[in-house]
Amino acid sequence: MNFKTVALLHPGNMGVTIGTAAATSGVRVIWASRQRSKATQERAKQAGLADVENLTNVVRTSDVILSVCPPHAALELARSVAEHNFKGIYVDANAVARATAEQIGETISQGGASFVDGGIIGSPVKRAGTTRLYLSGVRAPEVAELFSASMLDARAIGEDPGAASALKIVYAAWTKCTDALVLAIRALATREGVDKALLDEWTLSQPDLERKSIRAAAMAAPKAWRYVGEMREIAAAFESSGLPAGFHNAAADFYERLVPFKDRTDPAPTVAAVIDTLRGSPEKHR
Amino acid sequence: MNFKTVALLHPGNMGVTIGTAAATSGVRVIWASRQRSKATQERAKQAGLADVENLTNVVRTSDVILSVCPPHAALELARSVAEHNFKGIYVDANAVARATAEQIGETISQGGASFVDGGIIGSPVKRAGTTRLYLSGVRAPEVAELFSASMLDARAIGEDPGAASALKIVYAAWTKCTDALVLAIRALATREGVDKALLDEWTLSQPDLERKSIRAAAMAAPKAWRYVGEMREIAAAFESSGLPAGFHNAAADFYERLVPFKDRTDPAPTVAAVIDTLRGSPEKHR
Repeated sequence: MNFKTVALLHPGNMGVTIGTAAATSGVRVIWASRQRSKATQERAKQAGLADVENLTNVVRTSDVILSVCPPHAALELARSVAEHNFKGIYVDANAVARATAEQIGETISQGGASFVDGGIIGSPVKRAGTTRLYLSGVRAPEVAELFSASMLDARAIGEDPGAASALKIVYAAWTKCTDALVLAIRALATREGVDKALLDEWTLSQPDLERKSIRAAAMAAPKAWRYVGEMREIAAAFESSGLPAGFHNAAADFYERLVPFKDRTDPAPTVAAVIDTLRGSPEKHR
Repeated sequence: MNFKTVALLHPGNMGVTIGTAAATSGVRVIWASRQRSKATQERAKQAGLADVENLTNVVRTSDVILSVCPPHAALELARSVAEHNFKGIYVDANAVARATAEQIGETISQGGASFVDGGIIGSPVKRAGTTRLYLSGVRAPEVAELFSASMLDARAIGEDPGAASALKIVYAAWTKCTDALVLAIRALATREGVDKALLDEWTLSQPDLERKSIRAAAMAAPKAWRYVGEMREIAAAFESSGLPAGFHNAAADFYERLVPFKDRTDPAPTVAAVIDTLRGSPEKHR
């Protein structure tokens, strides 16, 4: 491997652990602090990432740029990098639809870089076996090699530069949509006065669902603000394949109402709190 | 218990087993063969139900009428019974939204009958523990008693005449919607060329989903023709509670495309067959 420097844009909760994983290959991992929050700066510092301040410096010194950001910001970030005429490998590891990934690929290629599509499945990398980084594109194997000594399971799945995004999309199409669905169902059951009867019936015939609803409230509600864009991307993917887009547009509508839970993880939101938020304040609706 | 005669409208695969369960209480179980198919006639005969031919005779002789029919036909059936001035207990055990159940209740009460709302969860009654009949309404306990010696687990859950329907709706809101979703996802994955990668990832992190998709193709596709109406009812229930209706409208759209599998259970439809049908003939889409 001939890489010396890898940039991580931006060090969020997930991204910072991908950067740390790349560092296990011996490369220098850099990032750019300009316009980033205090929390991000702290996170990057603790992970030992080198701050080169701005995108100009990132582009000048990186062999590989890893883009790990909210899906709605992915194309814009690629455009900024392309405008700086980056010539290395650009990995978009965000949860975007194939069409968006291909658009990012075109954008980045016009600037002279090589595009590798990526999709992350799992939680931030803290131990082995929890997180896969799927990669596709001609240079995907080179990127996968960066992580071969790390706890991140990086897998090159072929040359098709949209495959990794497509895989991430079809995977999240289940997990995040059903988190929304199970909470919407509990909201309806509560509204209808049958929540207890439903939980009793679930205990008999769907023993995982009560737990799933509790976990969805705790884990998904604080991330709802970024799931909105991801659900819209998934809906677009279904639509462009001639399949019903409504499942994921409904999930997007659902998560939009939970944006007030942004980053509220301590204490974690309860099912009751989520239901209250969905319904608005009791005064309004009575 | 003072009931002598219970009518079952109509003896479908599920209904006929409810009729058989009622017969264990010692009542005579009747049905009306007029305008019913050969298959239904055969089913009713094998179950030993007494044919009284038409609705006039049903209404004249029944203490209790059990309505078990496709959801889109439930209100119409109640209207016919009300027009014949039925004075007994009318149980609507169909998968309709609360609003529809309440409309059925009003219709039937205007004709002079007592309304009991019902919701069936589980498979046709062939052994104990597989099937619950939830009942709500003032006279729900009397109806539940009819089944106390049977393999059907009948549960009165209160006097609210919409609760049983609401419970059935919130229950099916998960099971049938996620059957549609998992198959739509496999269709998208196939279209995107990542079906194998998805199944590999599911094996690691969602070990039940491949099996769920296979079972959904085999079990749900042949019933898609009647799930369409049920999904629309559920969507209406979400909508009237101010929750996103899109999950279940998408499921309805999905099942609409699978109507050609009506009653094709031998051999059971495969995931591949469902995907082909969703996409239309290859010639059309190439």
